[in-house]
Amino acid sequence: MAALQAAPEWQVARWFNGAPPTLAGLRGRVVLLHAFQMLCPGCAMHALPQMQRVHRAFPRERLAVIGLHTVFEHHAAQGPAALAAFLHEYRYEFPVGVDAHDAGDPLPRTMRAYAMQGTPTLVLIDAAGRLRRQHFGVLDDLALGAALGGLLAAASADA
Amino acid sequence: MAALQAAPEWQVARWFNGAPPTLAGLRGRVVLLHAFQMLCPGCAMHALPQMQRVHRAFPRERLAVIGLHTVFEHHAAQGPAALAAFLHEYRYEFPVGVDAHDAGDPLPRTMRAYAMQGTPTLVLIDAAGRLRRQHFGVLDDLALGAALGGLLAAASADA
Amino acid sequence: MAALQAAPEWQVARWFNGAPPTLAGLRGRVVLLHAFQMLCPGCAMHALPQMQRVHRAFPRERLAVIGLHTVFEHHAAQGPAALAAFLHEYRYEFPVGVDAHDAGDPLPRTMRAYAMQGTPTLVLIDAAGRLRRQHFGVLDDLALGAALGGLLAAASADA
Amino acid sequence: MAALQAAPEWQVARWFNGAPPTLAGLRGRVVLLHAFQMLCPGCAMHALPQMQRVHRAFPRERLAVIGLHTVFEHHAAQGPAALAAFLHEYRYEFPVGVDAHDAGDPLPRTMRAYAMQGTPTLVLIDAAGRLRRQHFGVLDDLALGAALGGLLAAASADA
Repeated sequence: MAALQAAPEWQVARWFNGAPPTLAGLRGRVVLLHAFQMLCPGCAMHALPQMQRVHRAFPRERLAVIGLHTVFEHHAAQGPAALAAFLHEYRYEFPVGVDAHDAGDPLPRTMRAYAMQGTPTLVLIDAAGRLRRQHFGVLDDLALGAALGGLLAAASADA
Repeated sequence: MAALQAAPEWQVARWFNGAPPTLAGLRGRVVLLHAFQMLCPGCAMHALPQMQRVHRAFPRERLAVIGLHTVFEHHAAQGPAALAAFLHEYRYEFPVGVDAHDAGDPLPRTMRAYAMQGTPTLVLIDAAGRLRRQHFGVLDDLALGAALGGLLAAASADA
Repeated sequence: MAALQAAPEWQVARWFNGAPPTLAGLRGRVVLLHAFQMLCPGCAMHALPQMQRVHRAFPRERLAVIGLHTVFEHHAAQGPAALAAFLHEYRYEFPVGVDAHDAGDPLPRTMRAYAMQGTPTLVLIDAAGRLRRQHFGVLDDLALGAALGGLLAAASADA
Repeated sequence: MAALQAAPEWQVARWFNGAPPTLAGLRGRVVLLHAFQMLCPGCAMHALPQMQRVHRAFPRERLAVIGLHTVFEHHAAQGPAALAAFLHEYRYEFPVGVDAHDAGDPLPRTMRAYAMQGTPTLVLIDAAGRLRRQHFGVLDDLALGAALGGLLAAASADA
């Protein structure tokens, strides 16, 4: 078995829909972190509606669904005010953080820390805070459900 | 039968994907004008993909598919630069006009001229330039196909 | 323009959901005849649900939707009693005829008369009783809607 | 926690696509048993395609997908020859058993043993042979994936 790494803490400039606990503070819960850009079609058409389904289907005290707006292109069109309008219009309810940028770097900091290749990217973190899976693109509901079910069962067994 | 009105000319500040002829210049072709906002979920998830399907399914010399960005809310987030990024990312190929605003009026001019209630709105104009149908919301493909097929048949019969 | 042929009359051993007029008796109405087999997956999963949508979307005095059970394989499993159970379970409401067989011929008579290649097959007949389109497979809703809309408009213009 | 019951052994008159091990012989694997009737629309349109997706998505040495044809109505139309044609046409690859009938009883024996209310019914059995979930109707892919992922994780933890 591969050694499991601790998931890097996210670095967020601003939260929408309320700030969640830090990653350390989420210990004991499974975390589904999904990185997106509001103008990325695969995100808006497929990944975000799936996140909303997950957010509604699982108990929140066991699974935390957290969005991360990892803007690496079209910066002017995807700023915080535009994101606020987007989240309002789509009625997304889960917490969404704006990934922080270092001055002069087009790629935001959490995106760099996880070495993400683009958006959408799914990140699964187990109840012990370890990075269990990172997927560039969209998983189908069956595969994502199975991955979440496995981590939740492991979390219950350890509790 | 109700008297058919001439469709009002659109009033566009700027075109993306190339300017189409004026409405008068499109005489002889059926026109599907669809009013949208890039951050309107029903537009992005349903109406615009349907317009793309229509654009690809019908011969362009017989049917003109034209988008109209009728921004009446979230003006700062839906400006021309944001729209350019949106159209680029979604690979939409049909002409899209930015509906012109009068100073101080949140509703744009073409939207007012057609008395549109919101977005998405479909407008069907026959080959003689007459307004044949205006629908706030999304029609299913069967109903939209039937409406287009009827107007195209009438255009052929008149030609 | 190709010379249009008169559509051959169907030859039906038995009707379910009530017998429709003969093809001659349907003059003045557009006819959508769809040939299927109850155990053909493309028919059961796609073509028949589409026929149900068409049956519900268009006025019946203008468009007649008629199913034809053209059994050419699995004869024992697709007899009239099995078809009755199938139609009852799926709640299909349009008339369905059992295509008649000549003794010893696995292909039924109407299927032969139209030279159908398999199931599902769509047949479009105009209000003058002429065969306008025959398609082996499933058309998408946009294309089928456009074809129907065109024939209905032509029927109105001729009336 | 409720006491978990051992799942009743299935009672099958005949297998298609090869006989699987008995339930006892499947110890160590999670079992997804799905009861269906070939002329039940919810089964043919939704449940069986989902079973095929599950069959293809999970490793067979860890999860056994098994169909059970629990005929309780339309007996003449849903006999073994009709089922053979159905399975052939739809290309279903998982083992399917014909639930055995007692003379004079319209309900088959396994259906009675599990007190199933109708079709489709999903049954989840854990790697220790215990009945973990029984659901009349169709679960969405996210919920079914989560249930399977949980049982598979528990099976790994116990192994």
